[in-house]
Amino acid sequence: MTLIGCQEQSQDTIDETSGTNTDVNKERPKNIILLIGDGMGLSQVSAAQFYKEGTPSFERFPVVGLSKTSSSDQLITDSAAGATAFASGVKTYNGAVGMNRDSISVPTILEQMSEQGYHSGVIATSSITHATPAAFYAHVKRRGQAEDIASQMPASGVDFFAGGGLQYFNHRSDGADLIQELVDSGFAVDTTSIETQLTAEKQAYLLAADGMPRMLDGRGDFLPKATAKAIEQLNSGDKGFFLMVEGSQIDWGGHANETDYLVSELLDFDQVIDQVLDFAEKDGQTLVIVTADHETGGFTLSDLDGDYNQVNGTYSTGGHSATMVPVFAYGPGSESFGGTYPNNEIYFKMVRAIGLVVD
Amino acid sequence: MTLIGCQEQSQDTIDETSGTNTDVNKERPKNIILLIGDGMGLSQVSAAQFYKEGTPSFERFPVVGLSKTSSSDQLITDSAAGATAFASGVKTYNGAVGMNRDSISVPTILEQMSEQGYHSGVIATSSITHATPAAFYAHVKRRGQAEDIASQMPASGVDFFAGGGLQYFNHRSDGADLIQELVDSGFAVDTTSIETQLTAEKQAYLLAADGMPRMLDGRGDFLPKATAKAIEQLNSGDKGFFLMVEGSQIDWGGHANETDYLVSELLDFDQVIDQVLDFAEKDGQTLVIVTADHETGGFTLSDLDGDYNQVNGTYSTGGHSATMVPVFAYGPGSESFGGTYPNNEIYFKMVRAIGLVVD
Repeated sequence: MTLIGCQEQSQDTIDETSGTNTDVNKERPKNIILLIGDGMGLSQVSAAQFYKEGTPSFERFPVVGLSKTSSSDQLITDSAAGATAFASGVKTYNGAVGMNRDSISVPTILEQMSEQGYHSGVIATSSITHATPAAFYAHVKRRGQAEDIASQMPASGVDFFAGGGLQYFNHRSDGADLIQELVDSGFAVDTTSIETQLTAEKQAYLLAADGMPRMLDGRGDFLPKATAKAIEQLNSGDKGFFLMVEGSQIDWGGHANETDYLVSELLDFDQVIDQVLDFAEKDGQTLVIVTADHETGGFTLSDLDGDYNQVNGTYSTGGHSATMVPVFAYGPGSESFGGTYPNNEIYFKMVRAIGLVVD
Repeated sequence: MTLIGCQEQSQDTIDETSGTNTDVNKERPKNIILLIGDGMGLSQVSAAQFYKEGTPSFERFPVVGLSKTSSSDQLITDSAAGATAFASGVKTYNGAVGMNRDSISVPTILEQMSEQGYHSGVIATSSITHATPAAFYAHVKRRGQAEDIASQMPASGVDFFAGGGLQYFNHRSDGADLIQELVDSGFAVDTTSIETQLTAEKQAYLLAADGMPRMLDGRGDFLPKATAKAIEQLNSGDKGFFLMVEGSQIDWGGHANETDYLVSELLDFDQVIDQVLDFAEKDGQTLVIVTADHETGGFTLSDLDGDYNQVNGTYSTGGHSATMVPVFAYGPGSESFGGTYPNNEIYFKMVRAIGLVVD
């Protein structure tokens, strides 16, 4: 039984935002940290129960929701349309980065918060020009335009970024030197190690030509360290910050149908979530959202040949699936993330939570 | 990558219950309706988006949680241990019905509420002696003891039941006539049609020798009609009621790896959920919980050969999987069902919501 065509109407929900961040409202967060596990469906989340020693970070969230992931033109979304839904509140076509279904640029929450004085950052274990991080600071018709995406970084408003993708900055077909452009825009740029201490107000770590290494290949604690650096750097202002952290390669483990790969990336991401929650608990002013753009692999925690005491990672596809994905929320403003809603509602829920006035 | 052994400690959470139903507390429900979609994981729930015309019932719930389903002796639960967790608050071994891991009978929420004057009912599209419904009114060491389970129905405290399983009442190896015992206990019993009007205070519909027919084989509106009858009958008292309704055959569609079967059963169950929510919205005093004991089939809504505009039901196992399952809650007391918790917590959340004082 297969289903053809797009039954689900895309929903460009137009929500009014109310109030501003200067309202006296103790329930309003100062900061937003959005953690995206690319391809992280409920079975991927569930795997933390069985493969992690200790309690999964996911169990620390008091609020759970479900996100409907279809894009504007396909029942099954890709990461570009998925991230654009979170970043800009629009359902768009697969492949679109920061553009709506008519290929018109749409402002992102990162840009909107940056314009109003918030600090902002993006971190990924892919290239920083990959679909998910790109959708927060760039606007291109097709996700494959990595050089175009990179060229939009210097003036994007991003204050901190870390990930791979160096080649799109310094070995470009147009010969441009984007590293110099970053420096001219006030960035300190490091291409050697997340351990390097930078002191500028804007910081960039470009640590691989394209994607970062896999955990299985020794990426180590890049993601937790980058996240810690970002929070330290971005949390220095009066206004608050927006930070997006992507566990990019959970998706790649799913595409590869390799459970060792998938689980190692999941547990790395889980560690980052714990770290972010530790910060948010102390801080008391941070809204933490964990979700996924879609599920990858049709991953399941099956029995092993009928033995219900063995959990066996199995797959149904090398691509994405249409199943809903969980949303976890913690902190002031988290209450509104319960229930079931289209993925682009996550943008509006964040905007309303922080009281952002947008045109 | 496979995992051997039972990492997850079972959690027989001992929670104190507070207050009684006579407390003045506007947030306390009068009634509880627990709807169990057997084998209904998140991809099964998600299928309603793609195969139902109109909005899935699941989207009407403001509160979503995640249930960890492992039993006391296996990483992957069966329906008996899963239902016993909901009914009695204990993690037990696969196969146990209304007994803890030491094979000692444990009281069920249905029994406890019945003893305190609430009406109660159970409905299933399986035999009424099948593991899930049985765990609410019977206590046996092994789920296969269908005749023993049936023999516990007449004195169980159940006021209304509907489903299959007639043979375990009237064609028994011990020659007993349980239909007569039901009548002696005050039941009116019908074995012909859910349309039959019964007038006694206790009502039983036993409409198939074993399981009810599949939707694909013409079960029609048995489940919605049985649920409507149950609510009408049970809602007549001052005290309130407990009703469990199982969409039993969602599980069987998953075991069969047949999407037509699975989806037809899911949509039947979805209709019942809508109907229950309609009642609860008007009533205003009913806590509605929808969940599953486990996922069956490793069901996924995959792409079709790479086409992201076609959703293809695929499977990874003929058995159950270890993934978490969603919990949906509506009505007074629903607030506590957010977050992630072991399945047996659902019992304690229901008990606390209604303010039941238990020993």
